[in-house]
Amino acid sequence: MKPTIGFIGLGLMGKPMAQNLLRAGFPLLVWNRTAWKADELVRAGAKLAAYPGEAAAQADVLITIVSDPPALEQVLWREHGAMESLRAGSLLIDSSTVSPDLARRVAEACRKRDVDFLDAPVTGGTWGAEKGELVFMVGGRSETLARAKPVLETMGRKFLLLGPNGAGQIVKLGMNLLLALEVNAFAEALALVTAAGIPAERMVEVMQSSMGRAPLLDVKAPLMLKGEFPASFPLRLMHKDVRLALELARELRVALPAGEAAFRTYSQVRDSAKDDPDFSAIMRFWTETAS
Amino acid sequence: MKPTIGFIGLGLMGKPMAQNLLRAGFPLLVWNRTAWKADELVRAGAKLAAYPGEAAAQADVLITIVSDPPALEQVLWREHGAMESLRAGSLLIDSSTVSPDLARRVAEACRKRDVDFLDAPVTGGTWGAEKGELVFMVGGRSETLARAKPVLETMGRKFLLLGPNGAGQIVKLGMNLLLALEVNAFAEALALVTAAGIPAERMVEVMQSSMGRAPLLDVKAPLMLKGEFPASFPLRLMHKDVRLALELARELRVALPAGEAAFRTYSQVRDSAKDDPDFSAIMRFWTETAS
Repeated sequence: MKPTIGFIGLGLMGKPMAQNLLRAGFPLLVWNRTAWKADELVRAGAKLAAYPGEAAAQADVLITIVSDPPALEQVLWREHGAMESLRAGSLLIDSSTVSPDLARRVAEACRKRDVDFLDAPVTGGTWGAEKGELVFMVGGRSETLARAKPVLETMGRKFLLLGPNGAGQIVKLGMNLLLALEVNAFAEALALVTAAGIPAERMVEVMQSSMGRAPLLDVKAPLMLKGEFPASFPLRLMHKDVRLALELARELRVALPAGEAAFRTYSQVRDSAKDDPDFSAIMRFWTETAS
Repeated sequence: MKPTIGFIGLGLMGKPMAQNLLRAGFPLLVWNRTAWKADELVRAGAKLAAYPGEAAAQADVLITIVSDPPALEQVLWREHGAMESLRAGSLLIDSSTVSPDLARRVAEACRKRDVDFLDAPVTGGTWGAEKGELVFMVGGRSETLARAKPVLETMGRKFLLLGPNGAGQIVKLGMNLLLALEVNAFAEALALVTAAGIPAERMVEVMQSSMGRAPLLDVKAPLMLKGEFPASFPLRLMHKDVRLALELARELRVALPAGEAAFRTYSQVRDSAKDDPDFSAIMRFWTETAS
């Protein structure tokens, strides 16, 4: 008998992750703030919970993957929230990207209820979520990870235990800072050479013949050239992750000069966007919003 | 009968490039500010010129690759400089990294003497220079590039004609801005997660499992972890290239916020360095110079 999974958060990442759990045969109970996003999963056999606490009450393993720290606090702690319904001996896995501090507070609340907890944010994008190829960055105890593995293995291919609770979030924030800065680096270089009269395609060609090449840029550069930014990793979420990284840096008194600079650029593009673009839309800082 | 090559500048890049020309059988006349750096080439059959003008006077093709704009101006225009000795009908190839503006001034001076000119800075590092695998970013006329190819092919594998004179330098500055920002991005992410208690090796492991991976970081990250920075691309030269990129950006009124921020970081590390480290020594900003 497979354990019952509660799953909260059916966004760009959560939905394909839940689909993989369902395909693997886990009894699945889902909840999402926008209920219609569960329709496809319900047709495929998932049950719909009326509120987060209902998904938690029946779950052997509860997985949360929501957009930001306030969203996680809401699904856990507001009225009919999940935390008060989690059963002793159950397991909570949070794959949202939130602050390490919030991850530690969740861990503490779980400890009080005799619930195991992993912070386990992911990398690999929507493609990785669909293919079950995600990499999980995990904070928690190794016994807890061992217990979680049969579930995680339906969604990912790598499970890196990085330290105690919070460690997964720390590394995730570092990784997203890196990704944000890589795309910003290419955007600045492209802005410079095109302003000097070089066709953007030529810059990409040189980059791809050089040590500057990167898988991320191979994916994003063609979109940046076209000025098309369908959201694979929405800019609003990357903006939030860089903000969390900078907040952590300030707590730790670590200077991140380029991180701060890029954050202002992402902020300006976010504030003037009328759509919900991918974070590679940072290119608009040079092609649209700057004057 | 192969054309005679004059070669000025026997640094980390120039020396292996000149060795490849010599191996390919080109008569070679070399000059370097520090004369002993020519010893190995002279033993292998190159002739030593007493001053830049002597290397230029006998050359069918003169190649210059020196450290910065003032060094190029000196070898071309100071007393016994190369420019006044270049013969009508000869070809000058400058593979230094200098400003596009200087490249255009050299082109103009060459035009007046009926000398062909290419700005042709390179990417590929010392490894590429040794293996004859460099990528040349070329500004100039296609007929001139066609004429230069038999010579360039002994040193490189790709010759990208990017526009009129100056275009090679524009793209080179954009590329080095990208490389400088990529290494800085990794340094900031690493500084953040290690300050939060994550071992640096784990961050590298996660990066290499992710879209954040890049060939440049695969090479530099292990050195940054060890705190060892043998100069493959010296920080003082990267600092100069970022400065040139920012100067070009200001002329063109292009904002490069992360570029400006990273430049200040590279500057601080350069100013406090007691050695001549690789540009990946930017990591010292967090491990040594910051307080």
